Amino acid sequence: MIQTDICIIGAGPVGLFAVFEAGLLKMRCHLIDVLPQVGGQLSEIYPHKPIYDIPGYPTIKAQELIDNQMLQIAPFKPTFSLGERVEHLEKQEDGSYLVTGSDGTAIHCQVVVIAGGLGCFEPRKPDVFNLSLFEKAHVHYMVKDPEKFRDKTIVIAGGGDSALDWTVFLANVAKQVTLVHRSDSFRGAPDSAEKVYELAQQGKINLLLSHNLMALEGTSALQQIRLINKAKEEVFAPADHFIPLYGLSPKLGPIAEWGLTIDKNAIEVNTFDYSTNIERIYAIGDINTYPGKLKLILSGYHEAALMCQSAFKYVYPEQKLSFKYTTVNGVNAF
Amino acid sequence: MIQTDICIIGAGPVGLFAVFEAGLLKMRCHLIDVLPQVGGQLSEIYPHKPIYDIPGYPTIKAQELIDNQMLQIAPFKPTFSLGERVEHLEKQEDGSYLVTGSDGTAIHCQVVVIAGGLGCFEPRKPDVFNLSLFEKAHVHYMVKDPEKFRDKTIVIAGGGDSALDWTVFLANVAKQVTLVHRSDSFRGAPDSAEKVYELAQQGKINLLLSHNLMALEGTSALQQIRLINKAKEEVFAPADHFIPLYGLSPKLGPIAEWGLTIDKNAIEVNTFDYSTNIERIYAIGDINTYPGKLKLILSGYHEAALMCQSAFKYVYPEQKLSFKYTTVNGVNAF
Repeated sequence: MIQTDICIIGAGPVGLFAVFEAGLLKMRCHLIDVLPQVGGQLSEIYPHKPIYDIPGYPTIKAQELIDNQMLQIAPFKPTFSLGERVEHLEKQEDGSYLVTGSDGTAIHCQVVVIAGGLGCFEPRKPDVFNLSLFEKAHVHYMVKDPEKFRDKTIVIAGGGDSALDWTVFLANVAKQVTLVHRSDSFRGAPDSAEKVYELAQQGKINLLLSHNLMALEGTSALQQIRLINKAKEEVFAPADHFIPLYGLSPKLGPIAEWGLTIDKNAIEVNTFDYSTNIERIYAIGDINTYPGKLKLILSGYHEAALMCQSAFKYVYPEQKLSFKYTTVNGVNAF
Repeated sequence: MIQTDICIIGAGPVGLFAVFEAGLLKMRCHLIDVLPQVGGQLSEIYPHKPIYDIPGYPTIKAQELIDNQMLQIAPFKPTFSLGERVEHLEKQEDGSYLVTGSDGTAIHCQVVVIAGGLGCFEPRKPDVFNLSLFEKAHVHYMVKDPEKFRDKTIVIAGGGDSALDWTVFLANVAKQVTLVHRSDSFRGAPDSAEKVYELAQQGKINLLLSHNLMALEGTSALQQIRLINKAKEEVFAPADHFIPLYGLSPKLGPIAEWGLTIDKNAIEVNTFDYSTNIERIYAIGDINTYPGKLKLILSGYHEAALMCQSAFKYVYPEQKLSFKYTTVNGVNAF
């Protein structure tokens, strides 16, 4: 049995920074993440991609940010259960929690922090015949590495920002890009839609509005996608790869059964401490929502700091919290 | 007349980061700061001090953080009026503002953002005879450079965290440290108070509780401080330097007359966009307050991001704001 003060579900940038803020207040953390390494989507999906909006870094590669955060929290000696999903949560008589993972790891803690980010969601799948047949090798619910599509023939489906942005981006990478959308107007940003219309006019992409997906077709590899237009005519779009970008839906797994208030795809929290409707359970980062919420890493950092000030009362019920600046006191580990 | 979208009062780390977030939304910024250089208290008070709680930087010197932030906002070409105080604010018929500085600079903008931080406050001065006589050379309301006090005899006054922390720190630097407090218990953190008691017991500092300051004394330089104890007896503490640490009081200057809601030393704001009670005026960073507020640079960064999302409607009233990630789109300047 692991004894800790705070059990953090999710070891992405926000979960990792919570370790730092907790450490300043002498609270120990154990992190559990379904991925085999720390860093969340930064390490899993775009480790080599530059990020531009981390304050103080004109640009930093995603993995480099995670590496730096690991150095930053090293003095506080966090412990990890990686490659393990949270299975059970059991409230103890004294108010503390027992968290159990899918490999049987048992973690006893005073406070649970959900920092599951995108990992708590799964892509919305299109309703198209033969999807499962080609899903493994030829269907991509997110663009992890654009180079995979260099000189390929691809079909993107969707009408939001992801679909528009990747259409614009991949127009310069792929051999041929077809964008399919069931409606005749886009939900995404007007200037992105503008760019897509321009590319279509210039013949640089193939734009199919008011078309519905019918079937993925091919003998062994994917070859084409069968569509149906407004006039109920069949249309065929050649495709080596199919990229449906229909957004995400929650995949909270057992967390969904804890009784947390969920608003659309996110856990509702208070803005003063990012606590959920259940005492001692907090949610920070992309998994939470509150008025004005922006899914930015830098917002998750702020949420982690305020959350720790609030969680302190459960870890040290007898102590008065006093706030200190690291510039005066430095970082005093355990 | 300078025409800009957002006029930012204060060019510290939070004001500077607001330029970045505004720039992502194609809003231009002009910054005005009473200090002769950017960076706020980081550059003015502790440029060489390491900061430990900037996410992604295990440690970074204050000036280095500011230098990096200047690089980060360079693509957005902010303009500056440095060494100038805001004097007037005039609402125009169309809702926009005309800001005038002490040197006569006129700035026309759609939105005003107060990011004045500590610069909007001044130290509380003790009521002690001869203060003004020694104020210039021998009285210090903040410790800018501890090395100034190496091998000197100093008297610190106060009962909060600043007084306690600097007493502990300077005990190893100065020749002799006397801590004077009018009460017999401290307001600061219990563990800091504990350290001070220990140092006093070990004879490493001179602790004078329940003593009141009476006068600073000396012929040309400061030589001693006259105090009075509980029994109304005179006590003399030798002193080359006097460091009264009684906290700060607001020094909002003309801003105080704008009708903003002030709570103690800070401007009250909403947590969803950090707007004040006056439309088109926002307050971010150490100058604002809201439930759960922590005076951390990283919180100011978050506040800057949410503020810009809200300010957009005044700069582009006809446009729908669409939120984009820099990882997908990069940083597109003007």
